[in-house]
Order: sequence, then structure tokens, then C-alpha cells
Amino acid sequence: MLELNRIGEAARSAAFSLANASTAGKNRALAAIADSLVEHSPAILAANALDVEAGRQAGLSPSMVDRLSLTDARVRAMAEGVRDVMRLPDPVGRVLAGSTLDCGLQMEKIAVPLGVVGIIYEARPNVTSDAAAICLKSGNACVLRGGKEALNSNVEIARAMRAALISSGFDENCISLIEDPSREVAAAFMRLNRYVDCLIPRGGAGLIRSVIENATIPVIETGVGNCHAYVEKTADIEMAANVVFNAKTSRPSVCNALETLLVDEEIAKTALPAIAARLREKSVEIRGCEKTRAILPEAVPATEADYETEFLDYILAVKVVSGFDEAIRHIRRYSSRHSEAILTRDLAAARRFTKEIDSAAVYVNASTRFTDGGVFGLGAEIGISTQKLHARGPMGLEAMVSYKYVLYGDGQVR
Amino acid sequence: MLELNRIGEAARSAAFSLANASTAGKNRALAAIADSLVEHSPAILAANALDVEAGRQAGLSPSMVDRLSLTDARVRAMAEGVRDVMRLPDPVGRVLAGSTLDCGLQMEKIAVPLGVVGIIYEARPNVTSDAAAICLKSGNACVLRGGKEALNSNVEIARAMRAALISSGFDENCISLIEDPSREVAAAFMRLNRYVDCLIPRGGAGLIRSVIENATIPVIETGVGNCHAYVEKTADIEMAANVVFNAKTSRPSVCNALETLLVDEEIAKTALPAIAARLREKSVEIRGCEKTRAILPEAVPATEADYETEFLDYILAVKVVSGFDEAIRHIRRYSSRHSEAILTRDLAAARRFTKEIDSAAVYVNASTRFTDGGVFGLGAEIGISTQKLHARGPMGLEAMVSYKYVLYGDGQVR
Repeated sequence: MLELNRIGEAARSAAFSLANASTAGKNRALAAIADSLVEHSPAILAANALDVEAGRQAGLSPSMVDRLSLTDARVRAMAEGVRDVMRLPDPVGRVLAGSTLDCGLQMEKIAVPLGVVGIIYEARPNVTSDAAAICLKSGNACVLRGGKEALNSNVEIARAMRAALISSGFDENCISLIEDPSREVAAAFMRLNRYVDCLIPRGGAGLIRSVIENATIPVIETGVGNCHAYVEKTADIEMAANVVFNAKTSRPSVCNALETLLVDEEIAKTALPAIAARLREKSVEIRGCEKTRAILPEAVPATEADYETEFLDYILAVKVVSGFDEAIRHIRRYSSRHSEAILTRDLAAARRFTKEIDSAAVYVNASTRFTDGGVFGLGAEIGISTQKLHARGPMGLEAMVSYKYVLYGDGQVR
Repeated sequence: MLELNRIGEAARSAAFSLANASTAGKNRALAAIADSLVEHSPAILAANALDVEAGRQAGLSPSMVDRLSLTDARVRAMAEGVRDVMRLPDPVGRVLAGSTLDCGLQMEKIAVPLGVVGIIYEARPNVTSDAAAICLKSGNACVLRGGKEALNSNVEIARAMRAALISSGFDENCISLIEDPSREVAAAFMRLNRYVDCLIPRGGAGLIRSVIENATIPVIETGVGNCHAYVEKTADIEMAANVVFNAKTSRPSVCNALETLLVDEEIAKTALPAIAARLREKSVEIRGCEKTRAILPEAVPATEADYETEFLDYILAVKVVSGFDEAIRHIRRYSSRHSEAILTRDLAAARRFTKEIDSAAVYVNASTRFTDGGVFGLGAEIGISTQKLHARGPMGLEAMVSYKYVLYGDGQVR
């Protein structure tokens, strides 16, 4: 834990100087980081080969091995990602509000970095450069703790980035990596309030739950998306089938993919077969309630757990609802408040859905798959918040800052 | 715990309807609450008399008994506080941003309530109505858990408010009080993520620490103010003495009161005696470093702990620093990042201090005592955040909302 405290203290110190770095200086450092990643590509790939080999031997699933694996093209894409962040506007230093108080004090509310941001993530080495770049651009020092399966890769990626920080005149501790893979160190990291201002977990439901359970540092909960689409009784059936097909199958492994479909009883007999026909193209397994199964005999019986599950797979839970009220009740009960959609031609239904559904993104006649920092125009995304404090939905650079009040006077007392 | 779950579930349900209540409707409810508090004043005062008597017998300090005690005038002041909140602008429903995405989706980012807000506080019955009014105006259901010493008072205050909710057509569960004073229930409350969106502790350092340690719900840390003033070498000594006197003695028990004074070595020999002369008017105890004691022989030797302590009393820790760098280092190390001030006539010093000190409020030539929601023009204050996530410094109604993205399309898929 001594090492952890040393990392924390060094990060805090780096954060103080980074907070006032100029935009041009930060951009220079980001350009140097991108170049350094490409330069260090051979070392990164060699380290990654060790991780991939160990992962295969440990029996990682093919999709996990794929996420873990780097190629020269992937390293170049990481570098390009850093350059993309470089080109975004600097969120720090903006005057958000200002006024002269009655007592004559001149007050400004100014955007400042969060300080030290901790990122806890799984075995995806690209997150290492991605998160570091977003933190650096927003003036935050970061302390990274990636999955142990990617440790060798992450060490080399961090080394390349830290070398670039030094060469561009920055404190290398603006980016730190926790190299001890033990659970004890991870647990202590989540309680390092003295040095870390905020913790962002990126990964699956288990990781996020563990951070929420154990952290005393303020956490931004991200990621779990139990997303719903409700086909209201006036829906355009062809549009509904198309949107449901896209939301479920265009990329089932991501958090904005559709997990549960609700269909109004009045339209179910025509809508469900049309939707099921599209889903069959991708062999989607349908787990349905009894009414669904009466219409779609091929559907597997749905359990309570199915409505609670983020499948991240070619599986869709389906429920026929008696009307709007039941749809709202179901979503309120099971949703992780990430993204939900209604398919409807009725204006009042659309307005009611957008008001009464309390999720980060609420869609009318569109796929839930659009919930994404890039699509929303935020440029880069550090994650998708499913909590309501601080930031909600896709988090770009503006989610990485806080503010302070600066007040000038001439001796005012109260 | 069954009762706690019942309260949480009822609050969640009330929050869904309250989220879309009109401003006029919420104002009507607030007016009814204010009237109801006055009407129920006899019952509230009778209940409060029981609490005060029990508190005296349990040996509460006179200042705690004073905070606990209500009079008819104090109940009327509580009602007036509710009316003040009623007159503030509604933070809900504002369109914070909007655009048409490339794919044609029309996107709006809309301010929405946090949902269910938990407030954990100590034996101050006025917080019960104060917090409830701020939550209601901002569209949030609240679950209140006050100090057990004020339980009888809080039960009557909550009863008066809930009666007013019903009479104005609102769900009474928009305001709930946890009546079980046990620690187990408090601990379970802090982990009621399923029903509560955010937790705000209001009280002393011990309460706040306990909430941060135990909560899994997102917390807004409030209150602890280890505030510093730095008398830079060019300071106007008379102004410095006046500001320090005000910051320390105008109300020592509050979080924006001064706790540590730093004085530049170059000016200490003249500044310290002038400041000490003012502080003597209020018999302030000075705990000083060796250099301070060489100038002020009456000063008690300061320990490391003194620089870490929020005295909330007529005690001031004093340190003579070798210059700007040491002042910054000291503040960064010991400050709770609430409020700090510099006294200076030098523009570069003022600018450096406001940039390099990372606290919620940073003052140039003014008392730290100004850090307050009312003074900052926020109208009402639910607390002063000392964290950087979500809200920082005094939190008014705007700190009580989140946002959601609403997107209208015509069949867009990704």
C-alpha cells in the first residue's frame, strides 16, 4: 500500500500543476503521446503477445482474447484516438457564470479540472490511452488500474505515454498505472480519498458493482444498459421491426443494445410476427411472456430474471403489455435508466413517454443504439453514466471538470 | 428494514409523479406546507418540549440544546423559509442544450429532478422543513433521517408537511421521515440504491465521514471547512486584521469561519501584533508555530493536529511561512478545499493564488465568511459541497437537478 500512496501523492502533485497548463501545452503533450505510442508499437506488441498467450492458456473466451489483442493497426488507431481528443475544445477555464454581489465582491464561477481521476477497467488495453488522453486534455491527472490480463500491455503503453509527458515538459505522474494486480491494492485504491477526487469504472456489471460497494471516493456509475423498446399501439410496424432489429442486432455486446421489447396487446398479433421475422435473420433467441408465446410459438418462456438481465447477446426478452401504463411500470421497474425507445405515431404518447421515462436517453421512433458520445457530438467519451449525480448519459470532456468560485474584493467582511 | 424498503418504494413512486408536477402546483404545495407548519405549531412545540427535556437530561451541551429548541417564532421562521424557497425559480424542465444530429435525430438536453434525495442530519429540526422545501421545489421526493434527539419534533413537522401535501393534491410520500432512530436502519438507508438517487449529509465531520464510509448511494460531501487566510507580504495590514477578525469571530461555529492564518515572514513582525490585537477583543486563543510565538509570546504552541482541525471555536492556528510557495503547500496539504483567502496588494500574487488554490471559493481581500448560498445569489442552500463531483461550494436549487436527453426521430437506425 506504500506504493499506492506514493502513486496517489505524486498524482495529486502532478494534478496541481496540470490544472493550470495551457491548452497549447496540453495539446503538445497529446501529440507527443500519439507519436510515442506509434514509436513504441514494437515494445507494446511484444508485451501484448505475452498477455494474449497467457490469456489463451488461462482459457479466456475468444471474444475476451480479441478485446485484449493488439496489432500495429490497433496501436495506430489508439494514437489516432489521442489525436482526436487533442483536437477537441479545452473544457477548463471557461467562465460559467459571474456577477457582482451586493457587498461589492466580484464573483466568477470558473471551470476547473476534477483533479485526480481514477479509472478502473478490464482487459482492454486501448482504454489505457483513451482514458489517459481524455483526462489529460481536461487537465486531470489519472491513475489507471486495468485488468490483470492486460498488465504487460498496459505497462508498455503507460511507459510510452509517460516518456512523452517528460519530453513535452510535463510531470510524468500526470498518467500513472497501478502495476500491482492484487485485489487488496484495488480495494485500497477505491478508498484513496486523500489523493483521488473521483473514480470511473469501465467494464461489466460485476466490476461496476464492486466499485460501488467498496469505494469511498465519489464514483460515476457507468455502463449497464438494460434498454427497452415499447411498440405502442399506433406504431408503424415496419419502422418498429426495423428499429428493434437494429437496436438488438447491430452490436449486441454494447450497453446501448436493446434487451427487452414491450409490445402493446392491441398491435401484438401483427407487430410481433413482423419483428420476429427480422430477428430471425440473425437467429435472435426470443424469451417471451405467455401472450408472446401464444403469438410466437418458437419463443422460449421468459423468467423474471430475463427481464432483469443485460444479455449483451443475440437474446431478446419480450413482453406483451396491456397498454401504456403497464409499459411505463415495467420500464420503471427493470430499466437501468440508460436508454429506452418508444415506437408510435401518436403525439400524446410520444410526449408522455419522454416525460415519464426517467432514463439518460429517451427516444421516439429511433434505435437505442444512438446513445454514444461521438453520436451526441461530445467528441470523445469516457463512459456512459447511468447515475444522476454529476453527469448522465455519454460523458465527454465537459463531464471531466468541476468549477470553483473566485471572488475579488477590497476588504469586504460579513 | 421492511419499513425502510416500504418508505423507499413509496418515495420512488412519489418522485415519478412529482418529476412532472407544474411549477404552480409545487408552489401551491409549498404555500400549504408553510401554512400547515404555523397551524401545527402547538403540536410541534409540544413534541419539541419532550425532545429538549430528554436532551437536557441526557446532558446535551447548551449549544446543542439551543439548536434543538423551537419557539413559536422559530416555527414561523421555518414557514417563512419554505415561502422563500417557493419564490425561487423552478430549476426543472429547462432545455440546457439542443441540436439536430447528423442522422436527423432532434436532441434536447433537459433538466430533470435527481429523483429521490436522502438527507441525513443532526438534531436541528429546522433542517426538516428546510431540506424538504428545497427538494419539493426541485421536483425531488425526499427521505429525511434526522438526529434521534429531535425525533419527536421531526415527526410532528413531517406530519404537518405531509398533511399539506395531501390537501394540495400531492402524494404525501414526496416527503418521508425515517422514524426508527437505530444505527442499523441508518446504515441500511445509506445502501438503498434501488430507491434513492443521492444522499446529502448535513452536520459535523463525524456524521459526514460515516456517510462517506458506509454509503453505496452517490453522496454529496458537505460542510467541513478548514479555511485558511494568507497574509501575503504586500498586504494592507489594517485590512488584513479586519478581514481575519471577521472571518474568525463573526460566527466561529460555521464551516466558512477561518481556522488557520498564514503570515508571510517578511510582514509577520508588524502584521501579527496588529491581527492579534483585534482577536484579543474576542479572547481568541492563538496556537502558533515557533516563529509566531517569537512575535506573540501569548500564543500556545501549535501541533500538527491544530493545522488539521476545524475548531469551530474562538481558536486560531497561526503559521509564519517563508513565502508564497510555503503558503500554497500548506493550504494544499491541510485545506478541506472549502474557502481560502489571500490578503495582498500585488496583482500577480492575487492571480497566482486564485489559480493555484483549488478550493470551492477563493477570495482576494475578503472574508471567507461569504461562502453561502444566500450571499452567492442562490436563494436557498441545501449545503456546501466540498467535493468536486456534481456540485461544488454552496448548493442551491440548480444542484438538485440532473438532466436527460430526449431524442425525436422518424425511424433512425445506426
